Parts: sequence; structure tokens; C-alpha cells
Amino acid sequence: MKKSLLLSVVLLACSTFFADAEEGMYPISEIGRLNLKAKGLEIDPSDIYDPNKISLIDGICRVNGCTGSFVSPNGLIITNHHCAYRAIQSASSPDKDYLKDGFQAKTQTAEIPAKGYTVRITESYRDVSKDVLSVVKPTMSSADRTKAISKRRKELEQAAEAKNPGKRAEVAEMFTGKTYVLFLYTYIRDVRLVFAPPSSVGNFGGDVDNWEWPRHTGDFSLMRAYVAPDGSTATYAKENVPYKPKRHIKVSSRGVDEEDFVFLLGYPGRTSRHKTAAFLEYEKNVRLPYIVDLYQWQIREMEATGANNRAVALKHSSRSRSLANVEKRSRGQLKGLARKQLVEARMAQEAKLQKFIESDSDRKQKYGSLLDDIAGVYAEMAQAAPYENDVANLVNACRSLNFAFTIYDAAVERQRPDIDRESRYMDRNIDQTVRRMMLAQRDLHVPTDKRMLHGMLKRLANHKEEIKNVAFLKQLNSDAFAVDQVIDRLFNNSKMHDEDAVKKFLQMTPKQLAASDDAMIKIVVQLYPEYKRLREKNKEREGKLGQLYGSLIEVKAEFMRTDFVPDANATLRMTFGRVRRYSPEDGVIKTPITTLKGVIDKTTGKEPFVTPQKILDMYAKKDFGKFTHPKTGQVPVAILYSTDTTGGNSGSPILNAKGELVGVNFDRAFEATINDFAWNKDYSRSIGVDIRYVLWITGKVYGANHLLKEMGVE
Amino acid sequence: MKKSLLLSVVLLACSTFFADAEEGMYPISEIGRLNLKAKGLEIDPSDIYDPNKISLIDGICRVNGCTGSFVSPNGLIITNHHCAYRAIQSASSPDKDYLKDGFQAKTQTAEIPAKGYTVRITESYRDVSKDVLSVVKPTMSSADRTKAISKRRKELEQAAEAKNPGKRAEVAEMFTGKTYVLFLYTYIRDVRLVFAPPSSVGNFGGDVDNWEWPRHTGDFSLMRAYVAPDGSTATYAKENVPYKPKRHIKVSSRGVDEEDFVFLLGYPGRTSRHKTAAFLEYEKNVRLPYIVDLYQWQIREMEATGANNRAVALKHSSRSRSLANVEKRSRGQLKGLARKQLVEARMAQEAKLQKFIESDSDRKQKYGSLLDDIAGVYAEMAQAAPYENDVANLVNACRSLNFAFTIYDAAVERQRPDIDRESRYMDRNIDQTVRRMMLAQRDLHVPTDKRMLHGMLKRLANHKEEIKNVAFLKQLNSDAFAVDQVIDRLFNNSKMHDEDAVKKFLQMTPKQLAASDDAMIKIVVQLYPEYKRLREKNKEREGKLGQLYGSLIEVKAEFMRTDFVPDANATLRMTFGRVRRYSPEDGVIKTPITTLKGVIDKTTGKEPFVTPQKILDMYAKKDFGKFTHPKTGQVPVAILYSTDTTGGNSGSPILNAKGELVGVNFDRAFEATINDFAWNKDYSRSIGVDIRYVLWITGKVYGANHLLKEMGVE
Repeated sequence: MKKSLLLSVVLLACSTFFADAEEGMYPISEIGRLNLKAKGLEIDPSDIYDPNKISLIDGICRVNGCTGSFVSPNGLIITNHHCAYRAIQSASSPDKDYLKDGFQAKTQTAEIPAKGYTVRITESYRDVSKDVLSVVKPTMSSADRTKAISKRRKELEQAAEAKNPGKRAEVAEMFTGKTYVLFLYTYIRDVRLVFAPPSSVGNFGGDVDNWEWPRHTGDFSLMRAYVAPDGSTATYAKENVPYKPKRHIKVSSRGVDEEDFVFLLGYPGRTSRHKTAAFLEYEKNVRLPYIVDLYQWQIREMEATGANNRAVALKHSSRSRSLANVEKRSRGQLKGLARKQLVEARMAQEAKLQKFIESDSDRKQKYGSLLDDIAGVYAEMAQAAPYENDVANLVNACRSLNFAFTIYDAAVERQRPDIDRESRYMDRNIDQTVRRMMLAQRDLHVPTDKRMLHGMLKRLANHKEEIKNVAFLKQLNSDAFAVDQVIDRLFNNSKMHDEDAVKKFLQMTPKQLAASDDAMIKIVVQLYPEYKRLREKNKEREGKLGQLYGSLIEVKAEFMRTDFVPDANATLRMTFGRVRRYSPEDGVIKTPITTLKGVIDKTTGKEPFVTPQKILDMYAKKDFGKFTHPKTGQVPVAILYSTDTTGGNSGSPILNAKGELVGVNFDRAFEATINDFAWNKDYSRSIGVDIRYVLWITGKVYGANHLLKEMGVE
Repeated sequence: MKKSLLLSVVLLACSTFFADAEEGMYPISEIGRLNLKAKGLEIDPSDIYDPNKISLIDGICRVNGCTGSFVSPNGLIITNHHCAYRAIQSASSPDKDYLKDGFQAKTQTAEIPAKGYTVRITESYRDVSKDVLSVVKPTMSSADRTKAISKRRKELEQAAEAKNPGKRAEVAEMFTGKTYVLFLYTYIRDVRLVFAPPSSVGNFGGDVDNWEWPRHTGDFSLMRAYVAPDGSTATYAKENVPYKPKRHIKVSSRGVDEEDFVFLLGYPGRTSRHKTAAFLEYEKNVRLPYIVDLYQWQIREMEATGANNRAVALKHSSRSRSLANVEKRSRGQLKGLARKQLVEARMAQEAKLQKFIESDSDRKQKYGSLLDDIAGVYAEMAQAAPYENDVANLVNACRSLNFAFTIYDAAVERQRPDIDRESRYMDRNIDQTVRRMMLAQRDLHVPTDKRMLHGMLKRLANHKEEIKNVAFLKQLNSDAFAVDQVIDRLFNNSKMHDEDAVKKFLQMTPKQLAASDDAMIKIVVQLYPEYKRLREKNKEREGKLGQLYGSLIEVKAEFMRTDFVPDANATLRMTFGRVRRYSPEDGVIKTPITTLKGVIDKTTGKEPFVTPQKILDMYAKKDFGKFTHPKTGQVPVAILYSTDTTGGNSGSPILNAKGELVGVNFDRAFEATINDFAWNKDYSRSIGVDIRYVLWITGKVYGANHLLKEMGVE
């Protein structure tokens, strides 16, 4: 960490300790205040994080949207199988099916570039709230407020990057509309795949077991970060050398036991614990049901077209898995929201807050309509959602249309000064945007894409009123519109499936694109004003909500006289808890350590419950090496613990009281999907793969003992 | 019990105690030998059963295929809601929907006749093995052996009934082909419905929770047995009076706790613990998959036609529920059989037995090919099954065809001497057979029935070779066969939907039927020779297996030098165990007492998880009366215990160490569906409704305090 930029202002108000010790994704600045020794930590909290020395957090990195840990001095990273999935999928073909068979690089030169992957390491942070908010003027419209804040954040990022060549800067919003912190990251662009178990291990249980406990998934992979020979960040090159992290995490092959203290470091993505009951109602009644319905349909379409063709199924695998993941999480959240207590508790809390507000006339003047105003925004969003969601997903479900949209949108945005562009089209981001698009393009399967377009047009045809004045879409109101023919014509007269053509289009101006004869691009040009209108609308809502939530946090702090932990926002956080059982429902207790015997019991020989013969044989011979749980004599497979996690914590190290790695976090229990909205000590549980299973699979089963050695395990 | 007829020969061999104390559905003759005091029983075993005095078993009865307990001196019976289901359904209409709203007779005159219901009480038994087997001659064919045994059993039954007017006699096969016992029953034909909770209580969780634990179902009902004023058995008549059982079971409102000793008395239907590995393979590969597939299809058809019509749904409810029950049990059994250990363990056992057989030349001569011969019969059955199953189910799935078949079959059989007829057409049984058919006829829904016929003909069309020479079916091989038109013609020209017509047909001779112009009957007349052929074939298989299994039991007894408990055969049995948790899979523990809170948690307001508002309100007010579990302060709902049960044990009393009723058995856990093939102390668990829930629902919620009083509960 750079020592000069430190500050500890991400928490509001004044008390020293937190109400519920196990709730909380704590910003690293707060670690010193958590009284962790009393909670079970055996090392000094400053060994986890201290701005003045190298500490555990220097061994933690962000791997795309996941977390990873450096587990050797030579840049070896452990993360989840599902985090490395895209890399494994990209390197696979029906002949060389690393998803099916697993992958192992016997030497460093055999490691495979993980296209589209980046690794970031948090270097420093500083509070920039005042600076960011200084650009807001009381007379501004909501949309202008959003734009001004956004622009100022970008300026601060550019300035920090200019001052720190080779680093990447990001201004994160900690409390909506209220506090902003600038993070500086080391940014590595050459990442390679080192080891992946077969999907039958790394994704054992598949979508059936996803979000469930008990779990028997060996969800881990090993990757490696590379830099230029001079140590600077660089894209893939043969002469690149392994990155030397300042610090790596020690791997403990002894594992953990029930009730042991554990903690996690990682980059949790997004939670909504500070949002209002009106927001929860919006999620419950509008957004989540829409997602479940939309994604179930898309998954069905991909299953249908991939059913008898492994090559097509491989193309779909990453996308359909990612949709299935969100779909099931959304169902879990709906189930959690259906239990009335959650929304009711938040309503009760807000009723008390409202009373507090109204008890003082100044306060009433300032905040009196706050909660109603927030509810008003969600009400407006709920009303607009059926149409707006369908429009937004039109250029999402249909990949060809998505590419055409990105191409045209990028061209339009490029006409503007860099700082004013949508963030993903700024010079500093455009490479990443294009890289992701080209990756998605490799997986395009035209017959599936046609079905997606067909389905979305069918949905949009229901919005007869809304589409009346929207170019292209208004045709859906006409009986003469022959949807199948239109779709065929669109695909037959478009080059969105052609990598080279897409690359050429990416160089064109809006004018050139408007003049092109690509049918997809033509449609996008027609539709574009409607998307501009909706983008503006969203900025307006964001501005309103930002302002309102900023005030809400102020008055809540005044009312509750306690600290809040900011919602997750993909910045580095620490959470702690214990390996612990739970009762998901009346009559059921779930115990926190599963075993290899459970894998064997679940094995049916049919997807997703297939187990490699090698493992069956070694199980039969009880060839477990030293990787057993002393109490059961079994290889432990997965562990369950009471830490507070969310998406983005995938791949986070599970660390024991000594700060040693004892597992890799990969999921939450079904009842804990509701974590994103509210914490509950009775059923918020996270799931990780036990290090003993990782080591047994890697070393004993697949013979990669050189990697165990590199990790310091004999 | 009549004291004169007693004997204790249903067990083979000589040792005094049994290997695994909790496995076993023990014939009542064995109760004295079980050392029950040491296991936890507090009363004297002779209080459960003693041929020389009135004991608990005099308070137990069989209610159609279920078990019931007399719980008052006035013939009040407690059994399951699902056992009384047909009676509730029959009395219901969309206007007076007792399934939906529940039923309560405020006075005895308001009790509703339960059409088609009978109650039996075991009076006595005696071993008749020698007598039965005396008719078997070594030169007989297998089919003739079956017929001779069957005829002798009927003769013994008729003789016993002649000697004991008003009683019913049945010769039960205890060990296949080896031991036979004649049971004498008091037989009551006037049974009435007294109390039923709404299905939302009595069937809470429906097919979703069926065969599952944790359970939250109030699966109980109260009925009453009536006899003629002179105490003799009689069909329904207004002047009939409540039956006075010799003894009734005391109801304890105190309930039970985890690890308490409990025992059950009841009429378990059928198990196959003494069958070979070849039989298990046949079940696994042939019969069970067929059942699952066939029933899933039939359930789908009924769902489709009943989807938007409550009257049609009501017609289907009993049948579809019964199919769903067997379908899910079969899936559970397939899951259990898929775990290799079970079949492998039986194979290993048989390998050892074979070795023992071959170790002595006399023994080898006598039994050497025994296991192979048994396997041979199953192999032949497996080969014939695809066609034969479809033929058999043709006159099962399609109810109209079933009625026509029964009418014609009965007419043909009536031509033969009573003793030679198929049992269901004998004078002593024909009333029951007709009553059941007329009940099914009330639920006939022609559009559904057409779909059923259509589906079965489609299946039969796949057996091109087998149907070549079968009248009517051979047309399926012709391209000119217009299935829809044929089906329409069949239904348009048949009176099987008309109760009066069916009653007239039942009086006709085969000749008259053959001359009738009813299209369904005409088809049956054509098909009949094929069914006769298959019936003969099955008698041949039965005869072979009977002989072989008889020998197998002989040599197994010699080999193992231990006792066997005979397979369940719907005769009175006793089983004991404890209220006990279990682990169905790695990482999960299921605890043995569920609570009303669990009902509330499961309630979604959507079928099958609806809870009456009254219950929600009383829960909110914690209006539990004295019916709580002291440790949780909650009303307990269902309990789980380690007794050995199967179908037919539905409605069995759960008795505590003092012999008091603390619950009513109604199901098994999913993992325990495999009980029918093998017992396992780790996961064989039965499920009952806790008496405290029964009393709370009956008395507190629905105000039937007169019934609590009648049961001796204040």
C-alpha cells in the first residue's frame, strides 16, 4: 500500500464497535476497530492490514469480477473454477475439452493465456467525497447532477492514473450520493490458466446444487499473473515473466473444524442493505420476477438448440451458466422476500425514522418527505418497467443486435470529449469493452440468436401504446409484419457473426455506419433515439435517488447514533465468522463440513452428478493421503461458515485464525441469497471448498505435485 | 381373540431373539418373545397381546387398506385423512366441498355414510400350512400348483366362515410357498365419517411434501363403525348403532419427546425383504421405471383436463392422488436401488448361501440351481414385460374399458363353480368388487378417459410383433387405422358412463354380453382370450416362484440359523422404535418433531401450502391451549420415529411406552421408501401426526370439543 494516501472516513458517525459482529463487509480501513482478537483472531489485526507495512491484503487480488489469492511468490493465484470458467471454455474445443477433462500445465510455458482476464491489486485509497460533491449545484436537474458527479469521478481517475503510470484508478461510491473513495490498483493484463479440475469436479452438482448446501463441488482453479520482464504491466507476450506479489498467502493443509474462527478478504460486488422498503417491494414485485421469467426463457432456448450438439452447447455454456446462476439467486431472493418479516421489519424501522424526523420542525422541513420521495421514484420505475425492461433486453438477449448496438453507440460516443463519454467508451476502457465483445462474438450461434430476437420482439409487441412512436418497433403493431421473414432478412444481411467485419465496423464513424448496408446496424440506427431517451431517463432517476439516499444516510446517522457499514461496491472488504451449522427450516439442521463420501453418494453417473473414475477408485482404496478431517477420517470437500458475503466474493480466501488459507469461497446457501438485502445470523451462510479437497484433487488425484510444492505444501 | 385357535408358528427356526431389534413387522404371536421391557416398554407385553385376555390389539382395526384405532367405547375410529379421503370426496360436490372446507358431524345422526368402506378386527388365527400344501403334487405343472393352493385356501376360508357366521376368514401366505395362516375377522360394513379437517390441513404440502420429512400435515380423520341393533354386522341402515369395541385405545394429550420409546400396531401391506437380488434388478430395471413413466403420463392427462374445472378436478382427485403417491414412492425406491450397496449386499449374501449349498452334495442336489432358477423366472418376466405391462394397463388406464372388462370377466367367471373363480368374483367378494367399480364409475370423466385410451393404444402400437395375432390390437399395425375416429366411435357407442346400464350389464351372461351392441364390451370380448392367456402365464410364474421361494426359505433357515420375520402381507403386525432424528445425506440432519411455526413458515397461500385463516389467527395469538411441546412452547405437528412400516400402516396408532395413543402414522421419509426391499437403521423412518396437533385442530381450532370429550380428553 502506498502510505501517503491513507484516510479512514468511509464510515459515518462515531461509535467504536458494531452492533452485530458477524454482519458486515468491512472496508479494510475498519479492521483495526473490530476487536478481532476477542472474536477469535490469533494474529495481530495489523497483519491483515496496516498502511505502513506489507500485510495479508497485499496477497489478495481481483480476478475480473471475482477474488483471488496469491499462493506462491511466483504469481500463482487460487480462485474458483467458475471464475476461470471463461478461460477454460475459450481454450476448449470438442477435441481438447478442458471443461470436460480438466487442464494441467506441467510447466510454466504450457500455461494457456486466459483471454479477457485481468488481475488487480489494491494499492491505496483516499476519500474524495468533498471533491466529487463540490461540482453539484442546488439548481441542477437530477440528470445533470448524475452527469456532473460522473464527470468529476472520471477526472479524478484520469488525474490519479497520470500521476501513477501503469496503475489504474477508480472512484467508488461508498454511500449513495454521499461518500466517494478513490482506489488505486496495480493492473495486470497477462493472466494464464495453470490448473483446472474437470467440470465434473469443479462444477459437480451444476445448476441443481448451485446456491445449495450441502455442497460437494471442487470449485477451484489455479491461474498465474504475468508482467513484462521489467515488472511493468503488459498484455500477453511470450517473454513476460511471473508477477512477484509483495506478499502471498500461506496455505494450511490442516484445514478447519466446526466452530473455528475464519475470515475472508475479497471484492464483494453489490448489496442493498441501505435501500428502503419501497426498493424491496420494487425488487419483489417488478425486477426479480422479470429476471426469473426472462432468463428461464433464454436458458430454455439455449438448451433446445444445444441439446444434441456439444459444440453448440460449449458455445452456450458460459452464458447459460451465468444466466442460470442469476435466475436461481433471484428465485432465492424472491423466496426470502416472500417471507413478510423482511419488508415488514424495514417498514417498521422507517416508520420510527419518520417519527424521529417529524419530532423536530427543522428536521421535518429538511427530511419530511424523504421516504415518500424515494417511494415515488420506485413507483414511477415500476410503472415504466414492463416496457423499458423489454427494450433494454432486446439489445441484450439478441447478441447480434448487441454487437451492432455497441458498435454504433461507441461511434456516437467517440464524437464527444473523452471525459463526457459513457464510461465504457472512454479511451481508458474501450479496449476492455471491445475485448469482451469479441469474446462474446466467438460464442455467437446464429440459430439461437434468431430465437432470442424472435422472443424479444414477441414481448415488445405487447406494448402497443409505448411502441407507437418508436421507429422499427412500431411495425410490430401491424398485422402485415412477418416476423420470421424479417428476422431471416436481418440475419442474412448482417455481418455481426463475422469477426473481421465487426472489427472494421468498430473503426467507422456514425455517419459511415448509418450509410452501411448492414441490416442489424440499420435497425440500431433507427432504434438509437429511443435508447438515448431511456439512458437520459435513467440518469435522472439515478440523480434523484442519489440525492435522496444521501439525505437518508445523514438523517439515519443522526437518528440511530451508530455506525453503518457501506453497501458492497466491488472494493476490498473483510468479513469474519465461524464454521457453523444452521437450520434452514423447521425440522432440518445442516452441518458445516461435507465429505468425499457425500460426493460418492450423490454420484449417479448422469450430469451434473458424474465423478471421474480416478476419484471413485481412490475413494474405494481410501487413498486420501494426509488430506483428511481427523474426526471423520474422510476427505472434507466443502465448508459452511457464517461470514457476510455476496457475488464478487467468489474466489475469496477462507483464512483461519492465523491468517492461513484453509479454503476458497464460492457460493452462499439458498437462504442466504437474501443477504443482498438483509443479513440474518440464523441463515446467512457462505460456502467454500475445503483446502484439503483442493490439495487432494490437485496433488493426489491429478498428480500436479509441483503445484503443491510451489504452494509450500509437502 | 378366540382362545381356542391359537398357535405360534409363523416364524421359522429356533432362536429366541431377533438380530436387529428395530427391524421387523412382527406377527402378534411373537410379541412375547421380543424382550420389549428391555427396549423401553413400560406395560407388560401381554397387555399388547395375550390370547387369553382382552388387550390393546382388540382396539385396532383395518379400515379398507389402512389401519385405524378405536378411541372411544362407541366405535369412534381415528385414522388418516388420506384413508378417509374417498369418503370425504364421495360426500363432496363443488357446493358442499368437504375436501376444501373440512367436515364435522355435530351429532351422531349428522355422520355421513362412507360408501365402499369396511372395518375389520382381527379375532383369531391359526397355522394351516400343512393343510394348504397337502394339495400340491410333485407332478403338477406350475400353473396347476398355483390353482390348487388357491382353491384350498378358498375352501378353508369358506369353511371357517360357515363355522363362524358373520365373520370373515382369510388365509394369508406368510412365507411364499411355505407357510399359511388363517385369520378370522369381525367385519363391519357400515362406516361413517365423523370429522375431517380441510385438505389444507389434512393434506398440507400435498404431493410436494408426500414421502418427505420435515412434514407439516394434519393427516387424520375420525370415522365411526356401526352395527345392527343386535350387534351383528350389517350394511348401512338408519337404525344401526355404534359398534362397541372390546377395548379402545387411551388417548394421551401429553405427546412424546425425542428418543421416547414408541410402538405401532397395524396392517402393513406388502414388503419384499426375502426376495432375491434378481428380483431387485427386475424392480429397478423393469417394473419401477415403467410405473413412473406410466403414472406420470396419466397424472399429466388428469391435470390437463382438470386444470380449469373444479368439478373435473374433484372427480380426478382420489385417483390422481393415489397414482402420484405410488409414482413418487417408486422414484424413491429407484433412488434407493441406484445406490449400489443394496443390490450388492443381497448378491454377496446369496453368493455365501450358494457356497453353503454347494458345500454338501445332498444340499447341492436339492438346492444347487435354486438361485439361478429364480433369476430365470425374472429374466423371462423382464423380457415379456414391455408388452404385457401395456396390455395389462390398457384395461386399467381407460376406466370405461376397465368397467367393460370387469363386467365380462365377472360373467365368464360366474359360469364356473364358486370355488374355482378368480377370488374377486367369488360370491363372498363380488359385492365388494361391484361396489368399488360403481364408486370408480361415479368419477368417470369421458374426455380424460379418451385420452387414456389414446395413450395406451399409442404404446401398444409399438409392439408390432406381439400384437400381430391379437384380435383388435392387430389393427394398430395398419396405416389405415384412424385412432381418433375409432376412439370416438367406441365412446359414442358405449354405455359405460351410465350407472344404470352398467348395473344391467352386470346381470348378463357372457353370451348375452357377446351379443350386446355396446362397443366397449365388444372390444373386450375380442381381447379376452389374450387376457386369459396372460392370466394363465402369471399363474405359471407364481407357481414356479412359490415353489422356489419355499425352498429358498428352507435352505436359508438352515444356513443362517436365525429367525426371519415374514414379509408384510396385510395381517396384523407390531413394530417398535424411538422418536429419532436421522441424516438422509452428507451434511444434513433431520430432527424428529416439527411445529406449527413450521406450518406458518411453509405457508405461501398457494396450493398445496395454504393454511386456513383461523389457524393463522390462532398462531398469531399463540392460542395453543395445553397442546404444546414443553421444550419449544409450540404446538408439535408431526413426529418421526424409527419403526418399521409400509403402506397399510397408514392410520396406525403411535403408542407410547404405556400403550397410550400419542399420534397417528401416515407416511415414511423419502429414503425409507426403500423399506419395502430392505431395512436400514440409519434412514428408515416413519412419519406420524402428533396427537397434540390432532387435538388442537379438532378441539381448539374447529371447536369439536364433544369429540375430545368422547376420546376422554378434557
